[in-house]
Amino acid sequence: MRFDLSVYVLIDPDQACGHDPVALARAAAAGGATLIQLRDKRGAIRPAIELARALTAALAPLGVPLLVNDRVDVAMAAGADGVHLGQDDMDPATARRLLGPRAIIGQSVKTAAHAAALPLGAVDYAAVGGVFATLSKHNPEPPLGLAGLAERIAGLRARKAGLPVVAIAGIDAANAGDVIRAGADGVAVISAVAKAADPAVAVAAIRRAIEEARGAR
Amino acid sequence: MRFDLSVYVLIDPDQACGHDPVALARAAAAGGATLIQLRDKRGAIRPAIELARALTAALAPLGVPLLVNDRVDVAMAAGADGVHLGQDDMDPATARRLLGPRAIIGQSVKTAAHAAALPLGAVDYAAVGGVFATLSKHNPEPPLGLAGLAERIAGLRARKAGLPVVAIAGIDAANAGDVIRAGADGVAVISAVAKAADPAVAVAAIRRAIEEARGAR
Repeated sequence: MRFDLSVYVLIDPDQACGHDPVALARAAAAGGATLIQLRDKRGAIRPAIELARALTAALAPLGVPLLVNDRVDVAMAAGADGVHLGQDDMDPATARRLLGPRAIIGQSVKTAAHAAALPLGAVDYAAVGGVFATLSKHNPEPPLGLAGLAERIAGLRARKAGLPVVAIAGIDAANAGDVIRAGADGVAVISAVAKAADPAVAVAAIRRAIEEARGAR
Repeated sequence: MRFDLSVYVLIDPDQACGHDPVALARAAAAGGATLIQLRDKRGAIRPAIELARALTAALAPLGVPLLVNDRVDVAMAAGADGVHLGQDDMDPATARRLLGPRAIIGQSVKTAAHAAALPLGAVDYAAVGGVFATLSKHNPEPPLGLAGLAERIAGLRARKAGLPVVAIAGIDAANAGDVIRAGADGVAVISAVAKAADPAVAVAAIRRAIEEARGAR
């Protein structure tokens, strides 16, 4: 399935800052989000499936794919477009076998070892984490920074030319352009959107920053 | 898929009493277990898939089906024969859609409300829990006892004649016959097997008790 990592918005029901998660996803799509991920760390599968189904129903008519973080079973139950897998989740090759060739499958890459082990035959993109300091997740490692990000992306693309890469952690409209100039195809955001009074406006600002950086590249 | 609930042995890596889980499953099969369940509450999916795959590889040649407790994704990844679902796991109808018509799907029934809501079109059997006091699981409810078990089974079979029912909680060779006489098709056991010095002998004793009860019924 075709996908666009440009503005990849994560919807976390525990970090929605009072927004309804489905309304937040709709607002993100209206603001120009190109991909949406359900990041549900609550731990119970039934509410996760219910939310994934509501998001799929809301986003499918808008043409914005929905990926599910961590849980292949939730993605399958809800008919989502794919999964985003951490290093401790189901391995991408097994997920590919269960989800089929059309599913979008990404994996988190936080270390050089992860980058070297990324299963290129099974994943559609890599999400390079820890770019900046973030409040959305506890990261024990120091941030990569822009130079570290560029280096990590170069390492991944030395393994596979043109591998789609999205960057995550601490990204907002003010630094999204720098991330694109460092070589990422897109930015993944949580709090920059959830904390905004108007999430659609926040997404639109990030999208504009990305387009300006691409124009200048 | 055909299955036999008679001696349904649960393998829990946290309650294996020093036995290797795969060796325990092999011993159970050698003693006459008719169905084996992986009950992995450790929470991490990769070790669960790994163990489920090892159990499938060990049991398939012996003709003993393996079900996976709770996790449809683990069952699919390992090519297990089915799943056993608790009331908070994926709903059986969705699991049936994902696993297909040949999978064995069971659900736990602990209360009258669970019995009334059991999705008969999606499940192959019911596991009536809380029969006796057990050390293997924290049960806040008082035990059903044999009369309560008989009543629960009658209630389920009033909804669907001949519904296969296995009983669980506190069952061993000493009371397995009573459970069969109360109407169950089989007994599910954990500690009665895991705590035994020779698990195959323990399973064989339970099987003998069941067959004697059936002969007398």
